[in-house]
Amino acid sequence: MRGAVLYGPRDVRFEEVAAPAIIKPTDAIIRMSATCVCGSDLWPYRGANPVNQPTPMGHEYCGIVEEVGRAVTSVKPGHFVIGSFFASDNTCPNCLAGYHSSCQHRELVGGAQAPLLRVPLADGTLVATPVVPSDDLLPSLLTLSDVMGTGWFAAEAANVQPGKTVAVVGDGAVGLLAVLSAKQMGAGRIIAMSRHESRQKLALEFGATEIVTERGDEGVARIKELTKDIGADSVLECVGTQESMMQAILSTRPGGSVAYVGAPHGVELKGEELFYTHVRLHGGPAPVRRFLPNLVELVLKGKINPGKVFDLTLPLDNVSEAYRAMDERRAIKSLLHP
Amino acid sequence: MRGAVLYGPRDVRFEEVAAPAIIKPTDAIIRMSATCVCGSDLWPYRGANPVNQPTPMGHEYCGIVEEVGRAVTSVKPGHFVIGSFFASDNTCPNCLAGYHSSCQHRELVGGAQAPLLRVPLADGTLVATPVVPSDDLLPSLLTLSDVMGTGWFAAEAANVQPGKTVAVVGDGAVGLLAVLSAKQMGAGRIIAMSRHESRQKLALEFGATEIVTERGDEGVARIKELTKDIGADSVLECVGTQESMMQAILSTRPGGSVAYVGAPHGVELKGEELFYTHVRLHGGPAPVRRFLPNLVELVLKGKINPGKVFDLTLPLDNVSEAYRAMDERRAIKSLLHP
Repeated sequence: MRGAVLYGPRDVRFEEVAAPAIIKPTDAIIRMSATCVCGSDLWPYRGANPVNQPTPMGHEYCGIVEEVGRAVTSVKPGHFVIGSFFASDNTCPNCLAGYHSSCQHRELVGGAQAPLLRVPLADGTLVATPVVPSDDLLPSLLTLSDVMGTGWFAAEAANVQPGKTVAVVGDGAVGLLAVLSAKQMGAGRIIAMSRHESRQKLALEFGATEIVTERGDEGVARIKELTKDIGADSVLECVGTQESMMQAILSTRPGGSVAYVGAPHGVELKGEELFYTHVRLHGGPAPVRRFLPNLVELVLKGKINPGKVFDLTLPLDNVSEAYRAMDERRAIKSLLHP
Repeated sequence: MRGAVLYGPRDVRFEEVAAPAIIKPTDAIIRMSATCVCGSDLWPYRGANPVNQPTPMGHEYCGIVEEVGRAVTSVKPGHFVIGSFFASDNTCPNCLAGYHSSCQHRELVGGAQAPLLRVPLADGTLVATPVVPSDDLLPSLLTLSDVMGTGWFAAEAANVQPGKTVAVVGDGAVGLLAVLSAKQMGAGRIIAMSRHESRQKLALEFGATEIVTERGDEGVARIKELTKDIGADSVLECVGTQESMMQAILSTRPGGSVAYVGAPHGVELKGEELFYTHVRLHGGPAPVRRFLPNLVELVLKGKINPGKVFDLTLPLDNVSEAYRAMDERRAIKSLLHP
């Protein structure tokens, strides 16, 4: 089969790779219904993370179970399933506490930008839908594998409460879905920080009540202005840079909450500065598996339509253009059909 | 009058200072019943914070109201009162949210190691007891001005829950009172990290169920060992160094909470490292004022006896020995009688 392989900065190739096989009895093989490019794929694509060897890409997936190992009992060939980018056993103390992405047996899923994918710990990782969904639901269901669950975690980790004021730093797919999540949780005001028209539009559609285009210190000043000099109750940091992190922290009221869900790159927090902000800080790789059953239901019932973040759809063999369009910010997120 | 003035590292003098006077109509003057030396006073005493000019010392206080400004309505001369080291109006949005130490009009109280003290924003800051308490209650009531409230905030900010596992990093007065607070909140296991016999003893008396003497990475390993490799649910960081902060963070389970209440000195948190720990982080200067009414009641009813942290009592004019004994760790905390 052919899949996407990253060789170095801006060098992603669609080439022959080995088809995955069951390695452990707890594995499953999925035939991809749809896959996509993640904002986090852009870190190595842009050279911000080193690429030490040709690396099969992709960690967002949904599809039909093709084959299962002999120990797998909860999913069967023919089931439509979605899973997180971290495989997890769903039974260890960390999973039971809701932190599946810190599962004691977690494994990163990789190589999803291909027609077939091996998913470890299939019983713990995969959630099957009651029936095979229609094609129009695929984009929304696919987002549950990562970006939607990550946006949801941001809102939850930042303790979004009904009627309260939320600010979202970052207008990528995760930031936009953090807006949608805050809306679902009943936030009163949702301030989206974005300077791109198409993203502002989608933020408003997802429930943002205000748009702030300023960044950094000016962005902080604007949030303070909008909140009577107090700061937002919850700020959702969906980027991962030093600037976005400090913008989030300094935009938050004392006792308020900052969630950070974008893998930090070069972020350093000074203890003294953090101390006097009085903020609550929580984040990390989203425990997407925790939210999957609920989010699948919301999608199947038509209550949320997170698939709108896909503004570019391409055949999988054009994966290099999918990366380029996101890198150049021509696309919010690229969906790929195998 | 004479009061304690810090001139430089290990040079604290008891010397003639100007008696305080009402400056603003919201001020009160307190005649000190008891005062003390704080662990945080040791930072400048040891030269870790610069001393740019002779500085009147002390910020923990309780005593009898001597005089009030014309705008003060809630306390009167003759009342016995306690207040926090941060004066606060108790009416601004940050106070109403419980973050009095981020009050929009906050002022640091200073010069409490003296017979008389000016307290700004008296109505918001001071809490009066129903009657003037007997002398035996003075040590415990005095701790409510800072260390007891700070220990309580640590336990609250780390989300201590009934039956859960708590670890406390730091065996100073705040750490010991964090143990007491966790006990009051119903913690199931309380692991005190201490290598000093007298402090271990007090920790056990306050409710610690286990003592861990290891520090740093070894301390982390020991906590993991005691918690089936998961980490504690709540870790209370009561020191403020890089080592103690990382010890606290790495001892916490994914999804668990770290509170940090010791003013950080040279602490830098790497975003990447923090991200993958999945901990919740909250802290800052304790909003002691929020807890005062409840804590005063607990002391007056004899339910808590935080005054036990004072293992040295001296006349105020021997304040230099009070500092020395704490600096050399001969005393946990020194109480001073004016």
